[in-house]
Amino acid sequence: MNIKVIAFDADDTLWVNEPYFRQTEERFCELLSDYLSRHDLERELLTIEIANLALYGYGIKGFILSMIEAAMKITNNTLSVEVIGQIIDLGKQMLNQPIELLEGVEDVLKQLKDKYRLVVATKGDLLDQERKLRKSGINHYFHHIEIMSEKDDANYLKLIKHLDIRPEELLMIGNSLKSDVMPVLNVGGHAVHVPYHITWAHEQIEHTIDNERFKSLDTITDILAFL
Amino acid sequence: MNIKVIAFDADDTLWVNEPYFRQTEERFCELLSDYLSRHDLERELLTIEIANLALYGYGIKGFILSMIEAAMKITNNTLSVEVIGQIIDLGKQMLNQPIELLEGVEDVLKQLKDKYRLVVATKGDLLDQERKLRKSGINHYFHHIEIMSEKDDANYLKLIKHLDIRPEELLMIGNSLKSDVMPVLNVGGHAVHVPYHITWAHEQIEHTIDNERFKSLDTITDILAFL
Repeated sequence: MNIKVIAFDADDTLWVNEPYFRQTEERFCELLSDYLSRHDLERELLTIEIANLALYGYGIKGFILSMIEAAMKITNNTLSVEVIGQIIDLGKQMLNQPIELLEGVEDVLKQLKDKYRLVVATKGDLLDQERKLRKSGINHYFHHIEIMSEKDDANYLKLIKHLDIRPEELLMIGNSLKSDVMPVLNVGGHAVHVPYHITWAHEQIEHTIDNERFKSLDTITDILAFL
Repeated sequence: MNIKVIAFDADDTLWVNEPYFRQTEERFCELLSDYLSRHDLERELLTIEIANLALYGYGIKGFILSMIEAAMKITNNTLSVEVIGQIIDLGKQMLNQPIELLEGVEDVLKQLKDKYRLVVATKGDLLDQERKLRKSGINHYFHHIEIMSEKDDANYLKLIKHLDIRPEELLMIGNSLKSDVMPVLNVGGHAVHVPYHITWAHEQIEHTIDNERFKSLDTITDILAFL
Protein backbone atom coordinates (compact mmCIF):
# COMPACT_ATOMS: atom_id res chain seq x y z
CA MET A 1 0.00 0.00 0.00
CA ASN A 2 1.20 3.46 -0.86
CA ILE A 3 -1.50 5.55 0.78
CA LYS A 4 -1.25 9.33 0.45
CA VAL A 5 -4.70 10.45 1.55
CA ILE A 6 -6.86 9.03 4.31
CA ALA A 7 -10.51 10.01 4.02
CA PHE A 8 -12.79 9.69 7.03
CA ASP A 9 -16.52 9.37 6.93
CA ALA A 10 -17.97 11.71 9.58
CA ASP A 11 -21.31 10.53 11.01
CA ASP A 12 -20.80 7.46 13.22
CA THR A 13 -17.14 7.26 12.23
CA LEU A 14 -15.78 10.48 13.78
CA TRP A 15 -18.76 11.34 15.96
CA VAL A 16 -22.08 10.01 17.24
CA ASN A 17 -24.94 10.53 14.80
CA GLU A 18 -27.34 7.66 14.22
CA PRO A 19 -28.27 7.35 17.93
CA TYR A 20 -29.69 10.90 17.77
CA PHE A 21 -31.87 9.90 14.82
CA ARG A 22 -32.99 6.85 16.78
CA GLN A 23 -33.77 8.88 19.89
CA THR A 24 -35.82 11.28 17.78
CA GLU A 25 -37.57 8.37 16.13
CA GLU A 26 -38.44 7.04 19.60
CA ARG A 27 -39.92 10.38 20.58
CA PHE A 28 -41.83 10.40 17.29
CA CYS A 29 -43.26 6.97 18.10
CA GLU A 30 -44.25 8.14 21.58
CA LEU A 31 -46.15 11.06 20.07
CA LEU A 32 -48.12 8.66 17.87
CA SER A 33 -48.35 5.64 20.14
CA ASP A 34 -52.18 5.79 20.12
CA TYR A 35 -52.31 5.04 16.43
CA LEU A 36 -49.98 2.16 15.61
CA SER A 37 -47.47 -0.20 17.19
CA ARG A 38 -43.92 0.98 17.48
CA HIS A 39 -42.90 -1.43 14.75
CA ASP A 40 -45.54 -0.18 12.32
CA LEU A 41 -44.81 3.45 13.09
CA GLU A 42 -41.13 2.90 12.30
CA ARG A 43 -41.99 1.10 9.10
CA GLU A 44 -44.32 3.89 7.92
CA LEU A 45 -41.69 6.51 8.68
CA LEU A 46 -38.94 4.60 6.88
CA THR A 47 -41.17 4.12 3.82
CA ILE A 48 -41.80 7.85 3.60
CA GLU A 49 -38.15 8.72 4.28
CA ILE A 50 -37.00 6.50 1.43
CA ALA A 51 -39.71 7.82 -0.91
CA ASN A 52 -38.53 11.37 -0.18
CA LEU A 53 -34.80 10.64 -0.37
CA ALA A 54 -34.40 11.61 -4.03
CA LEU A 55 -36.19 14.89 -3.38
CA TYR A 56 -34.94 15.82 0.09
CA GLY A 57 -31.58 14.06 0.26
CA TYR A 58 -29.91 13.04 3.53
CA GLY A 59 -29.94 15.20 6.58
CA ILE A 60 -32.05 16.46 9.40
CA LYS A 61 -34.33 18.89 7.50
CA GLY A 62 -35.55 16.17 5.16
CA PHE A 63 -35.99 13.90 8.18
CA ILE A 64 -38.20 16.49 9.92
CA LEU A 65 -40.32 16.92 6.80
CA SER A 66 -40.67 13.16 6.44
CA MET A 67 -41.70 12.82 10.09
CA ILE A 68 -44.41 15.45 9.59
CA GLU A 69 -45.65 13.76 6.45
CA ALA A 70 -45.60 10.33 8.11
CA ALA A 71 -47.49 11.65 11.15
CA MET A 72 -50.20 13.07 8.91
CA LYS A 73 -50.50 9.87 6.94
CA ILE A 74 -50.48 7.60 10.00
CA THR A 75 -53.23 9.58 11.72
CA ASN A 76 -55.15 10.22 8.51
CA ASN A 77 -54.79 13.96 9.24
CA THR A 78 -56.47 13.63 12.63
CA LEU A 79 -53.41 14.55 14.67
CA SER A 80 -53.36 17.90 16.42
CA VAL A 81 -51.31 20.74 15.02
CA GLU A 82 -49.40 20.88 18.30
CA VAL A 83 -47.89 17.48 17.52
CA ILE A 84 -46.47 18.91 14.30
CA GLY A 85 -44.96 21.72 16.35
CA GLN A 86 -43.39 19.12 18.63
CA ILE A 87 -41.90 17.32 15.61
CA ILE A 88 -40.38 20.59 14.39
CA ASP A 89 -38.93 21.13 17.85
CA LEU A 90 -37.43 17.63 17.84
CA GLY A 91 -35.73 18.54 14.57
CA LYS A 92 -34.35 21.79 15.93
CA GLN A 93 -33.00 19.93 18.96
CA MET A 94 -31.20 17.56 16.59
CA LEU A 95 -29.69 20.48 14.67
CA ASN A 96 -28.49 22.01 17.93
CA GLN A 97 -27.10 18.76 19.35
CA PRO A 98 -23.51 19.05 20.64
CA ILE A 99 -20.88 16.94 18.91
CA GLU A 100 -19.67 13.86 20.72
CA LEU A 101 -16.46 12.46 19.25
CA LEU A 102 -16.15 8.70 19.18
CA GLU A 103 -13.49 7.10 21.34
CA GLY A 104 -9.97 7.21 19.98
CA VAL A 105 -10.77 9.57 17.09
CA GLU A 106 -8.66 12.52 18.15
CA ASP A 107 -5.71 10.32 19.04
CA VAL A 108 -5.86 8.61 15.64
CA LEU A 109 -5.96 11.97 13.82
CA LYS A 110 -3.02 13.26 15.85
CA GLN A 111 -0.91 10.25 15.02
CA LEU A 112 -1.74 10.23 11.32
CA LYS A 113 -1.74 13.91 10.52
CA ASP A 114 1.97 14.26 9.76
CA LYS A 115 2.21 11.09 7.67
CA TYR A 116 -0.87 11.46 5.46
CA ARG A 117 -3.16 14.09 4.07
CA LEU A 118 -6.35 13.67 6.07
CA VAL A 119 -9.73 14.59 4.59
CA VAL A 120 -13.38 14.20 5.54
CA ALA A 121 -15.74 12.64 3.02
CA THR A 122 -19.30 12.83 4.17
CA LYS A 123 -22.75 13.00 2.71
CA GLY A 124 -25.70 15.00 3.87
CA ASP A 125 -26.63 18.58 4.30
CA LEU A 126 -23.86 21.09 3.59
CA LEU A 127 -24.71 23.47 6.43
CA ASP A 128 -25.31 20.66 8.97
CA GLN A 129 -22.03 18.97 8.22
CA GLU A 130 -20.03 22.21 8.24
CA ARG A 131 -21.59 23.14 11.55
CA LYS A 132 -20.78 19.74 13.03
CA LEU A 133 -17.17 19.99 11.92
CA ARG A 134 -16.82 23.46 13.40
CA LYS A 135 -18.33 22.30 16.67
CA SER A 136 -16.22 19.12 16.71
CA GLY A 137 -12.95 20.89 17.41
CA ILE A 138 -11.10 18.55 15.01
CA ASN A 139 -11.54 20.67 11.88
CA HIS A 140 -7.86 21.66 11.86
CA TYR A 141 -6.65 18.09 11.26
CA PHE A 142 -8.18 18.05 7.78
CA HIS A 143 -6.82 19.40 4.51
CA HIS A 144 -10.12 19.17 2.77
CA ILE A 145 -13.76 18.56 3.57
CA GLU A 146 -15.79 16.88 0.84
CA ILE A 147 -19.52 16.96 1.34
CA MET A 148 -21.32 14.85 -1.24
CA SER A 149 -25.00 14.64 -2.00
CA GLU A 150 -24.55 10.90 -2.52
CA LYS A 151 -21.53 8.67 -1.86
CA ASP A 152 -21.34 6.96 -5.21
CA ASP A 153 -18.57 5.96 -7.62
CA ALA A 154 -18.80 9.23 -9.58
CA ASN A 155 -18.43 11.43 -6.51
CA TYR A 156 -15.48 9.43 -5.17
CA LEU A 157 -13.79 9.75 -8.57
CA LYS A 158 -14.38 13.50 -8.42
CA LEU A 159 -12.77 13.59 -4.97
CA ILE A 160 -9.77 11.57 -6.16
CA LYS A 161 -9.35 13.94 -9.11
CA HIS A 162 -9.65 16.93 -6.84
CA LEU A 163 -7.02 15.51 -4.47
CA ASP A 164 -4.76 14.93 -7.48
CA ILE A 165 -3.90 11.34 -6.48
CA ARG A 166 -4.30 7.92 -8.04
CA PRO A 167 -7.26 5.86 -6.75
CA GLU A 168 -4.95 3.34 -5.05
CA GLU A 169 -3.42 6.19 -3.01
CA LEU A 170 -6.75 6.77 -1.25
CA LEU A 171 -7.80 4.96 1.90
CA MET A 172 -11.38 5.56 3.01
CA ILE A 173 -12.51 4.74 6.55
CA GLY A 174 -16.16 4.54 7.46
CA ASN A 175 -18.98 2.65 9.12
CA SER A 176 -21.14 2.05 6.04
CA LEU A 177 -20.31 -0.77 3.65
CA LYS A 178 -22.73 0.73 1.16
CA SER A 179 -21.44 4.31 1.23
CA ASP A 180 -17.87 4.17 2.50
CA VAL A 181 -16.58 0.84 1.24
CA MET A 182 -18.26 -0.49 -1.92
CA PRO A 183 -17.98 2.63 -4.14
CA VAL A 184 -14.37 3.22 -3.02
CA LEU A 185 -13.40 -0.35 -3.92
CA ASN A 186 -15.28 0.06 -7.22
CA VAL A 187 -13.13 2.99 -8.27
CA GLY A 188 -9.85 1.35 -7.21
CA GLY A 189 -9.27 2.79 -3.74
CA HIS A 190 -8.62 1.12 -0.40
CA ALA A 191 -11.39 0.92 2.17
CA VAL A 192 -11.52 0.14 5.87
CA HIS A 193 -14.80 -0.69 7.54
CA VAL A 194 -15.17 0.25 11.20
CA PRO A 195 -18.70 -0.85 12.08
CA TYR A 196 -20.85 1.22 14.40
CA HIS A 197 -23.32 -0.48 16.67
CA ILE A 198 -26.31 1.15 14.97
CA THR A 199 -26.84 1.50 11.23
CA TRP A 200 -29.81 3.11 9.51
CA ALA A 201 -31.94 0.45 7.78
CA HIS A 202 -31.41 2.16 4.41
CA GLU A 203 -27.62 1.83 4.74
CA GLN A 204 -27.63 -1.85 5.63
CA ILE A 205 -26.41 -4.32 3.04
CA GLU A 206 -25.79 -8.02 3.25
CA HIS A 207 -22.46 -8.52 1.67
CA THR A 208 -19.28 -10.47 2.12
CA ILE A 209 -16.44 -8.52 0.69
CA ASP A 210 -13.48 -10.36 -0.70
CA ASN A 211 -11.06 -7.74 -1.93
CA GLU A 212 -7.39 -7.27 -1.14
CA ARG A 213 -7.98 -3.53 -0.86
CA PHE A 214 -10.55 -4.05 1.89
CA LYS A 215 -10.12 -4.49 5.63
CA SER A 216 -12.59 -4.64 8.49
CA LEU A 217 -11.45 -3.37 11.87
CA ASP A 218 -13.15 -3.36 15.27
CA THR A 219 -12.31 0.21 16.29
CA ILE A 220 -10.88 3.26 14.62
CA THR A 221 -7.77 2.98 16.81
CA ASP A 222 -6.93 -0.32 15.09
CA ILE A 223 -6.13 1.69 11.96
CA LEU A 224 -2.79 2.68 13.54
CA ALA A 225 -1.59 -0.91 13.76
CA PHE A 226 -3.06 -1.72 10.34
CA LEU A 227 -1.12 1.07 8.59
CA MET B 1 -7.67 42.90 -16.09
CA ASN B 2 -6.08 39.51 -16.38
CA ILE B 3 -9.07 37.27 -15.66
CA LYS B 4 -8.52 33.52 -15.67
CA VAL B 5 -11.67 32.23 -14.02
CA ILE B 6 -15.20 33.53 -14.40
CA ALA B 7 -17.53 32.41 -11.62
CA PHE B 8 -21.27 32.58 -12.09
CA ASP B 9 -23.84 32.76 -9.38
CA ALA B 10 -26.65 30.34 -10.25
CA ASP B 11 -30.06 31.36 -8.85
CA ASP B 12 -31.39 34.41 -10.71
CA THR B 13 -28.13 34.77 -12.63
CA LEU B 14 -28.14 31.60 -14.74
CA TRP B 15 -31.75 30.59 -14.18
CA VAL B 16 -35.05 31.75 -12.69
CA ASN B 17 -35.31 31.15 -8.95
CA GLU B 18 -36.70 33.92 -6.77
CA PRO B 19 -40.01 34.13 -8.72
CA TYR B 20 -40.74 30.53 -7.67
CA PHE B 21 -40.24 31.47 -4.04
CA ARG B 22 -42.54 34.45 -4.57
CA GLN B 23 -45.20 32.33 -6.24
CA THR B 24 -45.05 29.88 -3.35
CA GLU B 25 -45.25 32.75 -0.89
CA GLU B 26 -48.37 33.98 -2.70
CA ARG B 27 -49.95 30.55 -2.40
CA PHE B 28 -48.97 30.50 1.27
CA CYS B 29 -50.71 33.85 1.76
CA GLU B 30 -53.82 32.61 -0.01
CA LEU B 31 -53.97 29.62 2.34
CA LEU B 32 -53.91 31.96 5.33
CA SER B 33 -55.81 34.94 3.95
CA ASP B 34 -58.48 34.63 6.65
CA TYR B 35 -56.00 35.43 9.38
CA LEU B 36 -53.89 38.43 8.37
CA SER B 37 -53.34 40.85 5.53
CA ARG B 38 -50.98 39.83 2.78
CA HIS B 39 -48.44 42.33 4.03
CA ASP B 40 -48.51 41.02 7.59
CA LEU B 41 -48.39 37.40 6.46
CA GLU B 42 -45.27 38.13 4.41
CA ARG B 43 -43.68 39.93 7.32
CA GLU B 44 -44.39 37.08 9.74
CA LEU B 45 -42.96 34.56 7.31
CA LEU B 46 -39.82 36.60 6.67
CA THR B 47 -39.24 37.03 10.41
CA ILE B 48 -39.36 33.29 10.94
CA GLU B 49 -37.25 32.56 7.86
CA ILE B 50 -34.51 34.87 9.10
CA ALA B 51 -34.70 33.49 12.64
CA ASN B 52 -34.25 29.98 11.22
CA LEU B 53 -31.51 30.84 8.73
CA ALA B 54 -28.59 29.99 11.01
CA LEU B 55 -30.17 26.62 11.78
CA TYR B 56 -31.72 25.67 8.41
CA GLY B 57 -29.54 27.58 5.93
CA TYR B 58 -30.72 28.59 2.47
CA GLY B 59 -32.83 26.40 0.29
CA ILE B 60 -36.26 24.98 -0.21
CA LYS B 61 -36.40 22.52 2.69
CA GLY B 62 -35.71 25.22 5.25
CA PHE B 63 -38.27 27.41 3.49
CA ILE B 64 -40.94 24.69 3.79
CA LEU B 65 -40.20 24.23 7.48
CA SER B 66 -40.37 27.98 8.06
CA MET B 67 -43.69 28.21 6.22
CA ILE B 68 -45.14 25.47 8.44
CA GLU B 69 -43.85 27.18 11.56
CA ALA B 70 -45.16 30.58 10.42
CA ALA B 71 -48.58 29.13 9.58
CA MET B 72 -48.84 27.62 13.06
CA LYS B 73 -47.80 30.85 14.72
CA ILE B 74 -50.05 33.07 12.58
CA THR B 75 -53.11 30.93 13.27
CA ASN B 76 -52.17 30.29 16.87
CA ASN B 77 -52.27 26.58 16.06
CA THR B 78 -55.88 26.77 14.85
CA LEU B 79 -55.12 25.92 11.22
CA SER B 80 -56.18 22.55 9.90
CA VAL B 81 -53.62 19.82 9.40
CA GLU B 82 -54.61 19.72 5.70
CA VAL B 83 -53.11 23.19 5.25
CA ILE B 84 -49.79 21.86 6.49
CA GLY B 85 -50.07 19.09 3.93
CA GLN B 86 -50.66 21.73 1.27
CA ILE B 87 -47.56 23.62 2.37
CA ILE B 88 -45.48 20.44 2.10
CA ASP B 89 -46.90 19.91 -1.39
CA LEU B 90 -45.98 23.46 -2.37
CA GLY B 91 -42.42 22.70 -1.29
CA LYS B 92 -42.28 19.48 -3.28
CA GLN B 93 -43.54 21.35 -6.35
CA MET B 94 -40.69 23.82 -5.92
CA LEU B 95 -38.17 20.99 -5.66
CA ASN B 96 -39.56 19.47 -8.85
CA GLN B 97 -39.71 22.75 -10.77
CA PRO B 98 -38.12 22.60 -14.24
CA ILE B 99 -35.12 24.86 -14.84
CA GLU B 100 -35.69 27.95 -16.93
CA LEU B 101 -32.43 29.50 -18.12
CA LEU B 102 -32.31 33.29 -18.23
CA GLU B 103 -32.05 34.95 -21.63
CA GLY B 104 -28.61 35.01 -23.16
CA VAL B 105 -27.02 32.66 -20.61
CA GLU B 106 -26.17 29.77 -22.89
CA ASP B 107 -24.83 32.09 -25.60
CA VAL B 108 -22.57 33.83 -23.07
CA LEU B 109 -21.23 30.51 -21.78
CA LYS B 110 -20.55 29.29 -25.33
CA GLN B 111 -18.59 32.40 -26.18
CA LEU B 112 -16.55 32.43 -22.98
CA LYS B 113 -15.81 28.76 -22.49
CA ASP B 114 -12.67 28.59 -24.61
CA LYS B 115 -11.15 31.79 -23.25
CA TYR B 116 -11.72 31.33 -19.52
CA ARG B 117 -12.24 28.62 -16.96
CA LEU B 118 -15.91 28.88 -16.07
CA VAL B 119 -17.20 27.85 -12.67
CA VAL B 120 -20.44 28.08 -10.73
CA ALA B 121 -20.37 29.58 -7.24
CA THR B 122 -23.69 29.23 -5.53
CA LYS B 123 -25.08 28.93 -2.06
CA GLY B 124 -27.91 26.82 -0.82
CA ASP B 125 -28.74 23.21 -0.51
CA LEU B 126 -26.19 20.82 -2.03
CA LEU B 127 -28.71 18.35 -3.45
CA ASP B 128 -31.04 21.10 -4.79
CA GLN B 129 -28.25 22.93 -6.55
CA GLU B 130 -26.75 19.77 -8.03
CA ARG B 131 -30.17 18.73 -9.29
CA LYS B 132 -30.78 22.14 -10.84
CA LEU B 133 -27.42 22.04 -12.62
CA ARG B 134 -28.11 18.57 -13.97
CA LYS B 135 -31.54 19.63 -15.20
CA SER B 136 -30.20 22.90 -16.65
CA GLY B 137 -28.34 21.23 -19.52
CA ILE B 138 -25.41 23.69 -19.08
CA ASN B 139 -23.43 21.60 -16.61
CA HIS B 140 -20.79 20.77 -19.24
CA TYR B 141 -19.64 24.39 -19.60
CA PHE B 142 -18.26 24.41 -16.07
CA HIS B 143 -14.92 23.16 -14.77
CA HIS B 144 -16.00 23.29 -11.19
CA ILE B 145 -19.15 23.74 -9.13
CA GLU B 146 -18.71 25.38 -5.76
CA ILE B 147 -21.68 25.13 -3.45
CA MET B 148 -21.19 27.21 -0.32
CA SER B 149 -23.27 27.28 2.84
CA GLU B 150 -22.71 31.06 2.93
CA LYS B 151 -21.13 33.39 0.38
CA ASP B 152 -18.67 35.16 2.62
CA ASP B 153 -15.05 36.30 2.36
CA ALA B 154 -13.70 33.07 3.84
CA ASN B 155 -15.54 30.83 1.40
CA TYR B 156 -14.49 32.91 -1.61
CA LEU B 157 -10.88 32.71 -0.42
CA LYS B 158 -11.25 28.94 -0.18
CA LEU B 159 -12.57 28.86 -3.75
CA ILE B 160 -9.68 31.01 -5.03
CA LYS B 161 -7.21 28.73 -3.29
CA HIS B 162 -8.92 25.68 -4.72
CA LEU B 163 -8.81 27.17 -8.23
CA ASP B 164 -5.12 27.89 -7.70
CA ILE B 165 -5.34 31.48 -8.96
CA ARG B 166 -4.65 34.91 -7.50
CA PRO B 167 -7.72 36.84 -6.27
CA GLU B 168 -7.42 39.42 -9.07
CA GLU B 169 -7.69 36.62 -11.63
CA LEU B 170 -11.25 35.87 -10.52
CA LEU B 171 -14.31 37.59 -11.95
CA MET B 172 -17.58 36.83 -10.20
CA ILE B 173 -20.93 37.56 -11.88
CA GLY B 174 -24.16 37.60 -9.94
CA ASN B 175 -27.38 39.35 -9.05
CA SER B 176 -26.73 39.90 -5.34
CA LEU B 177 -24.55 42.80 -4.19
CA LYS B 178 -24.44 41.23 -0.74
CA SER B 179 -23.43 37.71 -1.78
CA ASP B 180 -21.82 37.97 -5.22
CA VAL B 181 -20.14 41.38 -5.17
CA MET B 182 -19.13 42.68 -1.73
CA PRO B 183 -17.24 39.61 -0.43
CA VAL B 184 -15.47 39.15 -3.79
CA LEU B 185 -14.29 42.75 -3.79
CA ASN B 186 -13.25 42.33 -0.14
CA VAL B 187 -10.87 39.50 -1.00
CA GLY B 188 -9.40 41.27 -4.04
CA GLY B 189 -11.39 39.80 -6.91
CA HIS B 190 -13.40 41.44 -9.69
CA ALA B 191 -17.18 41.48 -9.52
CA VAL B 192 -19.93 42.21 -12.02
CA HIS B 193 -23.45 42.88 -10.84
CA VAL B 194 -26.27 41.88 -13.17
CA PRO B 195 -29.42 42.82 -11.26
CA TYR B 196 -32.50 40.63 -11.42
CA HIS B 197 -35.94 42.18 -11.22
CA ILE B 198 -36.76 40.47 -7.94
CA THR B 199 -34.46 40.15 -4.93
CA TRP B 200 -35.28 38.45 -1.65
CA ALA B 201 -35.65 41.03 1.13
CA HIS B 202 -32.83 39.40 3.11
CA GLU B 203 -30.39 39.89 0.19
CA GLN B 204 -31.17 43.55 -0.36
CA ILE B 205 -28.58 46.11 0.65
CA GLU B 206 -28.42 49.82 0.12
CA HIS B 207 -24.97 50.48 -1.12
CA THR B 208 -23.14 52.55 -3.68
CA ILE B 209 -20.03 50.73 -4.73
CA ASP B 210 -17.03 52.70 -5.81
CA ASN B 211 -14.35 50.22 -6.71
CA GLU B 212 -12.32 49.88 -9.88
CA ARG B 213 -12.79 46.11 -9.74
CA PHE B 214 -16.58 46.47 -9.83
CA LYS B 215 -18.95 46.90 -12.76
CA SER B 216 -22.73 46.91 -13.01
CA LEU B 217 -24.30 45.62 -16.22
CA ASP B 218 -27.90 45.49 -17.37
CA THR B 219 -27.90 41.96 -18.78
CA ILE B 220 -25.58 38.98 -18.67
CA THR B 221 -24.97 39.36 -22.42
CA ASP B 222 -23.27 42.71 -21.75
CA ILE B 223 -20.41 40.77 -20.16
CA LEU B 224 -19.16 39.89 -23.64
CA ALA B 225 -18.61 43.55 -24.60
CA PHE B 226 -17.22 44.32 -21.12
CA LEU B 227 -14.54 41.65 -21.35
